[in-house]
Order: sequence, then C-alpha cells, then structure tokens
Amino acid sequence: MNPSGIVTLLTDFGLDDAYVGAMKGAILAVHRKATIVDISHGVRPFAVLQGAFLLDSAWRSFPAGTVHVAVVDPGVGSERKAIAFKAADHFFVGPDNGLFTFLNEPIIETIELTTPPEASPTFHGRDVFAPVAAKLAAGAALSEVGRRPGDEPLRLPDAWASKVGEAWRAQALHCDHFGNVISNLPIRALARIRAANGTPVRTVETYEDAAPKELVALMGSSGRIEFALREGSAAARLHVAPGDALLVT
Amino acid sequence: MNPSGIVTLLTDFGLDDAYVGAMKGAILAVHRKATIVDISHGVRPFAVLQGAFLLDSAWRSFPAGTVHVAVVDPGVGSERKAIAFKAADHFFVGPDNGLFTFLNEPIIETIELTTPPEASPTFHGRDVFAPVAAKLAAGAALSEVGRRPGDEPLRLPDAWASKVGEAWRAQALHCDHFGNVISNLPIRALARIRAANGTPVRTVETYEDAAPKELVALMGSSGRIEFALREGSAAARLHVAPGDALLVT
Amino acid sequence: MNPSGIVTLLTDFGLDDAYVGAMKGAILAVHRKATIVDISHGVRPFAVLQGAFLLDSAWRSFPAGTVHVAVVDPGVGSERKAIAFKAADHFFVGPDNGLFTFLNEPIIETIELTTPPEASPTFHGRDVFAPVAAKLAAGAALSEVGRRPGDEPLRLPDAWASKVGEAWRAQALHCDHFGNVISNLPIRALARIRAANGTPVRTVETYEDAAPKELVALMGSSGRIEFALREGSAAARLHVAPGDALLVT
Repeated sequence: MNPSGIVTLLTDFGLDDAYVGAMKGAILAVHRKATIVDISHGVRPFAVLQGAFLLDSAWRSFPAGTVHVAVVDPGVGSERKAIAFKAADHFFVGPDNGLFTFLNEPIIETIELTTPPEASPTFHGRDVFAPVAAKLAAGAALSEVGRRPGDEPLRLPDAWASKVGEAWRAQALHCDHFGNVISNLPIRALARIRAANGTPVRTVETYEDAAPKELVALMGSSGRIEFALREGSAAARLHVAPGDALLVT
Repeated sequence: MNPSGIVTLLTDFGLDDAYVGAMKGAILAVHRKATIVDISHGVRPFAVLQGAFLLDSAWRSFPAGTVHVAVVDPGVGSERKAIAFKAADHFFVGPDNGLFTFLNEPIIETIELTTPPEASPTFHGRDVFAPVAAKLAAGAALSEVGRRPGDEPLRLPDAWASKVGEAWRAQALHCDHFGNVISNLPIRALARIRAANGTPVRTVETYEDAAPKELVALMGSSGRIEFALREGSAAARLHVAPGDALLVT
Repeated sequence: MNPSGIVTLLTDFGLDDAYVGAMKGAILAVHRKATIVDISHGVRPFAVLQGAFLLDSAWRSFPAGTVHVAVVDPGVGSERKAIAFKAADHFFVGPDNGLFTFLNEPIIETIELTTPPEASPTFHGRDVFAPVAAKLAAGAALSEVGRRPGDEPLRLPDAWASKVGEAWRAQALHCDHFGNVISNLPIRALARIRAANGTPVRTVETYEDAAPKELVALMGSSGRIEFALREGSAAARLHVAPGDALLVT
C-alpha cells in the first residue's frame, strides 16, 4: 500500500484553542509534505461513540493509504493503550478506547505505541499521535512506529442499540448541524418505529416525504437510522444531545 | 486558463459534522494535489443570499484558475439544477439557486451536472460537487464534467434592496464576527440614510468617525453599505440576523 | 535559514466570515505552494494577550523557517505599526500591539511594514499581512518586504501577574475548550495558591490528583499555572472569560 500522504484529524479539542494547530505543526515537522484534513474537532468532550460515528462516516471518502488520527478522551493517567493499526488499506491512530468501534473491516495489523505515563489528551495529540501519523504518512511501516504488536482495537459493547422487550434502548450518536439525530439503531428496526422518547415518529423513505414540522425516522445519508424534522430540529424536539439515551418503541 | 489547483469551499454544513471532511476526502481522492481552502461553513442553514455575499467577498482574492464550490440549500428533491461555469478566469460549482447572484463578470460557459434524483445536500456536496471540482482543479474542461450546456446562473430578484417611496426595503446579507451588519443597499443610498428599523443612524466615512456606542452606516471593506457600532454589535442593536429585513429611511 | 513554506494564522476574525478565506487566497496568490495552518481564529475580539498566549503555545511545534501571522486588534486608524521580524529561526508578522509579548527568544531582525493610513483589521489581514507572509514563506528576506528597520516588538507591561502584598493580581489569559483557565501567574506562585477570586483552590501535581468537581491549580501542558475542575469547567466555576481579572491568594 502506498501512502496517500494525507492525515485526517478527529478530536474533541474544539477549534478555539491552539491544540489542533500544534498537532498540525508536529505533523509537518516530521513530514513536511503531509496534507492535513480536519474531519471534526467538535466532538462533545469525552463522547467516544460520537467520535466513532463521525470517523466512520468520513474515512471511506479518502483515498487508500490515508492515516486517520482520532483523539477523544484518551484516558488521562489511565492504563489505556495508544495504538496504530491498518485496515482496508487505511491507517488508524489513537487511544484504544472504542473510537474504532464501528470499523467493520478486518484489522490487518495493530501496534501498541509508546506513551508517557501521565499527560493530558492534548499533549498526547501533539507528542504521541501526531508524530506517529506523520511517519506513517511518509511511508513508515507500523513496526517502525510502535513498541510491540497490539490486540485488536476495543469495540464498545453499547455501541449498538439493544432490544428490551418490544422496545429499543438506543442512543443519539450525533446531532448534526441541521438538527438531525443519528441513532445507533440497527437498520432492521426502521420499519417498526412508532415513537422516540415518547414523541410520535413516522417512518418515511426520503426526507421529502415528511410534512413540515413532522418528526420522521429514515435511513439517512449516514447509512443509519436518523430522526429528522422538516423545517426544524429533531434534536431540539427530542431534547437530546450526543450520547443521550433514546427509548424507541 | 491554467488551473491553480485550488478548490475553495463555502457551505451551510457547519464544522462539527464530518460532512466537510468527507467532501475534502472526495476531492483528494480524485485530485491528490488539490489545495483546499475553506471560505466559510458558517452560512445560516438555507440562507442562500448570505452564502452569495460571502462567496462574492472572497473569490477575487484567489489566483485565476481556482475552483469555487458553494453548497447552500441545494434543493433536496426539487427540480433545481446543479451547474458548473466559468467566469473571470475562475470556475464556480454548485446548485443553481441564486448562490452566484452577485457575480457581475460575464459568464463564459455553463454546464449542467448530472445529479441523482433524490439526495441530501451533504450527499450532493460529497458525491456530485466535490468530484466535479476536483476534475476542474486537475485541468478538465467544463464539457468533461457535465452532461449538457446550461443556462446562465440564476440571479435572485430580491438580491438588492428596493425603493419603497422614500424608504429602502433592504435586508441583512450577513452579520460578521464583530457585529457589523452588511446590507444589500446600493452604494448611492449611503448619503441619505437616517435610520434602520427605526433606530437612528449617522453616515460616516470611516469607522473612526463614529463615537463609542454610536450606530453608523458606512461603505465597509466589503464594498457594501454596512451598519457598525463602535465598541459594540450593530447586529445586536438592530436585532437582525442574516436574511432579516432592514427598513432603511 | 530555509523557509519551511508554512504560514500559520492566528486572528480574532472567527470562522463564519469570509475574512480568513480571503487571507488564504491572498497568500496563495503570491506563493501558490504555501502550506497554510490555522492556529486559532477564536481569539476574543481585541483580546491581545489571549492571542499572545495562543501563539506562544503553538509556534514551537512548527519546523524552523515557518512564518506566523497574528492579527488581533491591529489598531484601526491608529499610529500603531505593522511589523515583521525573525526570532529563533521563525518569522512573525502582525501589528506591533503586544501580540508577541511572550516571545522570549532574541529578536534577530525587525522590519516595519508599509500600511495604508486607514483600513479595517480584516483589510490589513488580507492586503498587508498575507502578502508579506507569503513572500517570506517563498524565501524573501525581511528587507524585501518592509520599508525600514523597526524596533523590538512591544511587550505589554501587564503580561504577567503582579504581586499586591501577599496576593497576586493576575488574569485569565485563556479558557480552553475543556474549561481550564490558563493564568499569567509565574510558576513560582504555584506552591502557595489558596484561592482564586475567593474560591478555594488546592495545588496538585497532576490532573488525576484532583477529586471530582474539585477546583485545583497545577502546572498545565501550556507550561503555565492553570485552574482546572475535574469533570467540570473551571472557567464556569470562577466566572471568568479571557482577559478577566483573577485575584489569587
């Protein structure tokens, strides 16, 4: 696999601090020709599943050989490992905390990175993950950037909604800029959705099938079941933010 | 015209979702050497004239041969066309919904793009507009990226303020980060402005001529009539957001 | 010193307007191969010390030969000078208003730039600072971009906290995305901090030493004394925003 030279960044650092800029500097200091692309820095602080969803919805748009760095709640001071791995001809770099939960592709190889014992997430971003990503983008092998082979990345058990009798215990993975609520319901649940958090919902095929101000459920452009409100915000109607529970009947 | 290899992006997608990142991935997948620059992703959802203003205030700063992609309210499920065209040695790509209203330069050539019948704006951004922009940035001719010659881009009739007796029925095209309100008043209106939405306004030549907390009108750096409030926000004083009406007397 | 070809941007322009995009266009129009990296555009309007802190916390992550442009409150219509200078194998460009206060490295050479007599900050960003930065990134010497040798950049006298009896009169330089409050207290003050703005504070060595919801002071990743609240926002607890006073006892 030839590196594309592209490094994508996904964090919960926000854009107002200098943390993201410092990560980019650290990447360019190692590999001047890297092309750096932001996926999002608007992940809710510590919302690992939201980060996992956003990464999942973007990485396939990039050419093979791209390095995707994700840093959300890397577990300050904990025993959590930092990893880099290869899957589907892409590289992924980040804390092993579930950020790669939605990655279905077979993992080709995982390596465990060397990390300082105690440091802030933003420190890890700049001083651990950024240089590793830059080396991979420049063509290094996984074995050159880590200290020993690692296990498969952690998949969070609550990543997908679970059935509770006839209901689904789901969650809002993400609420997008247009107020759409992206859920972790399996697609097979779509046909039988009647309500979310007690609010009536109608299942439609496309967004245009909804009446103005009507709350609908549909298979969205994310490939997931989304709740949408035409000419309004489904997130506001349902009173949910990323990570919040959705009881779907 | 040689392509500059630069692609600019203007959308109402916001920066917290992965939509913009996915568009960038799709551009780089087609043309790895493209340089992508964000104009703004903070257009108010569906605010086409605000998008038109922001595009108008930025594209001339880029070198000839640059491709400008604008996606605001592309008309989900409607009959609206997607277009690409050339003007003033730049390329423009987006929905034909008025986003190019303020472009005064002669249109050299327009082409109509092939679009799927039903899809979300963000889908169009990634799967229709991004690849077309990348091909143009790589040197393709307009005829290679579309299906048939198109008409001149739509100019919205309400783009400029209109005279109603002695008053002007105008609108706030944009409210900037410093609270300045950029209007769609013609420059010739400047000398006779006395009030906006009932609030007294004094016309000044430069920002420094204003007293602290005084609402003034001036010809701003945008080349348009702006309302400004020294040491404060004219947008807050006038209670307006992008797209809101301004009655100017 | 070889130019890295990288230009970083730090402004108080926000990301919703087209001002930053226009600056980038102006840079690329002069030096097409420049790599442009945003440090932050979220500096509070006119908060010069916040900008100085953010620049200080990021520029060292970039390779030698990088050009750093900072534009915060450039002093519209005033007698303030625009400068470019070299220090520690990096170039810095911006208004001489204290934005470079925290730069400890010896200044190798300063040049005064030519500026129009009256113009907006955003105009200066695009038409004065951007082209100068692009020329430096392309390898120009300082003497080629300015009109005459300049003085050392201004250092603001209130950049560091001052002792008032047993207390410190400090300020919040920055409040980060995680609610941490970065202060301008000297490191030697850390051992004796008991309260900030009347709220009890405990000094800890690492963030993990804090109990949940406990306000602590520590030497943060910024190399400065930060106030932090585990599982919460120290900025909200202390009711401070960038630039606000902190009385520390």
